[in-house]
Amino acid sequence: METEKLKAYFRNDRFANLAGIEIIEVAEGYCKAKLEIEDKHLNSANVVQGGAIFTLADLAFGVASNSRGQLALAVNVNISFMKGKSEGTLFATATELTDPKRIGAYDVLVTDENSEVIARFNGLVYRKNEKHSF
Amino acid sequence: METEKLKAYFRNDRFANLAGIEIIEVAEGYCKAKLEIEDKHLNSANVVQGGAIFTLADLAFGVASNSRGQLALAVNVNISFMKGKSEGTLFATATELTDPKRIGAYDVLVTDENSEVIARFNGLVYRKNEKHSF
Amino acid sequence: METEKLKAYFRNDRFANLAGIEIIEVAEGYCKAKLEIEDKHLNSANVVQGGAIFTLADLAFGVASNSRGQLALAVNVNISFMKGKSEGTLFATATELTDPKRIGAYDVLVTDENSEVIARFNGLVYRKNEKHSF
Amino acid sequence: METEKLKAYFRNDRFANLAGIEIIEVAEGYCKAKLEIEDKHLNSANVVQGGAIFTLADLAFGVASNSRGQLALAVNVNISFMKGKSEGTLFATATELTDPKRIGAYDVLVTDENSEVIARFNGLVYRKNEKHSF
Repeated sequence: METEKLKAYFRNDRFANLAGIEIIEVAEGYCKAKLEIEDKHLNSANVVQGGAIFTLADLAFGVASNSRGQLALAVNVNISFMKGKSEGTLFATATELTDPKRIGAYDVLVTDENSEVIARFNGLVYRKNEKHSF
Repeated sequence: METEKLKAYFRNDRFANLAGIEIIEVAEGYCKAKLEIEDKHLNSANVVQGGAIFTLADLAFGVASNSRGQLALAVNVNISFMKGKSEGTLFATATELTDPKRIGAYDVLVTDENSEVIARFNGLVYRKNEKHSF
Repeated sequence: METEKLKAYFRNDRFANLAGIEIIEVAEGYCKAKLEIEDKHLNSANVVQGGAIFTLADLAFGVASNSRGQLALAVNVNISFMKGKSEGTLFATATELTDPKRIGAYDVLVTDENSEVIARFNGLVYRKNEKHSF
Repeated sequence: METEKLKAYFRNDRFANLAGIEIIEVAEGYCKAKLEIEDKHLNSANVVQGGAIFTLADLAFGVASNSRGQLALAVNVNISFMKGKSEGTLFATATELTDPKRIGAYDVLVTDENSEVIARFNGLVYRKNEKHSF
């Protein structure tokens, strides 16, 4: 894995860019990303929309699960929303539960600047034989 | 329930607006929303990002679960991604599984213009005693 | 698919037998199973244990997802418990969401003798190339 | 919380008893349980049935989430099956993700005697105002 190439590849995620998400740390099977809450992330109840939280966690999940160079496709995600949040910073930290196999499991915890849990995100990927060109 | 007030309330969802999502049909316990796929919705693999699909389904879920005027908070969502999609239109159709109670269950199916299933989204809400002012 | 061979194969599920679960209907991508509630299914709060409900739904899911003769392994299940139940009969009805592919999605609804929803079960399988010998 | 009373209460879980599950450790927000694999736990493919694994994890989840004396009802569980297993011992270790609130989140990891991950179980409870009498 070459971390810089991996980051460059994911910098081309246009929806994550639209949401203002930034990758801040990458390692094998690991990624930390962040989102500074702005008005554009809020829903009608003036808290961060579930989709913005999902997108943040999903980017960290995508980076972590593709970090060894083998193409991984998200097949399932379960997300629980623990706490609403209207301002500040959100962090998503993705870790690998098991050794990479055909089906891989990742846990992503979304926390705020006070380390309070905002959401729990549990993802599964299906790995293809294809390798990334990066 | 007054459908126009409900739609007006959700038109203030800034993240759904950022993603270009439109509510097209509302009834009690029901909502249909749509997203015309543009470049901004794509991820690094050039298919619609999971977060964009989630946001579309989440808006339909939010409208359907708040459609009777009682405040409903999303507590859990499980989403399975069945098929990648790079262009065209996505629709999310949210239906109510059970009579509204403290804990309510909603199913949202995300399909494309050919009625192919793109994602399955199963959501749970926790209802508060508070009523919406709309 | 030969329905009788499929049923015979699943009649060898020893844990489903221990729980007293019976397959009552099978078709391609479909299964209905039942459980007559007895004292042995109850938990400490005297309602049917989540594991008994899961086992009932899982058997219907297994039969439906293997009904075309290709080996399918459960990779993920999301289950929501809608209502407690202490006596009577539970039915699990499994249906296929999408055409069978590498990753297949099934919905199982657990209802009681009054057609009230007891639980919602959403499962995913990973299909192997292997065929069942039945 | 009185650990002995909590354990005695859960020893009356008849379905967990039928499955041969044993509570081996309890603390506030924590439980470890085990299951010695026997023929009765196997499915038609001769691996431990998903329902047996679920029941094991569910008992640990129930004990951990009720360990502070406030009645907690399981509302949602997401379970991913990582590896099949035909003999040996399964352990389920339940931990609390967040401070106990109306909606509580618990993670349960099911491992074998070699600490290999067999399943990941993520549960949500809804807490009632009622207290347990134990």
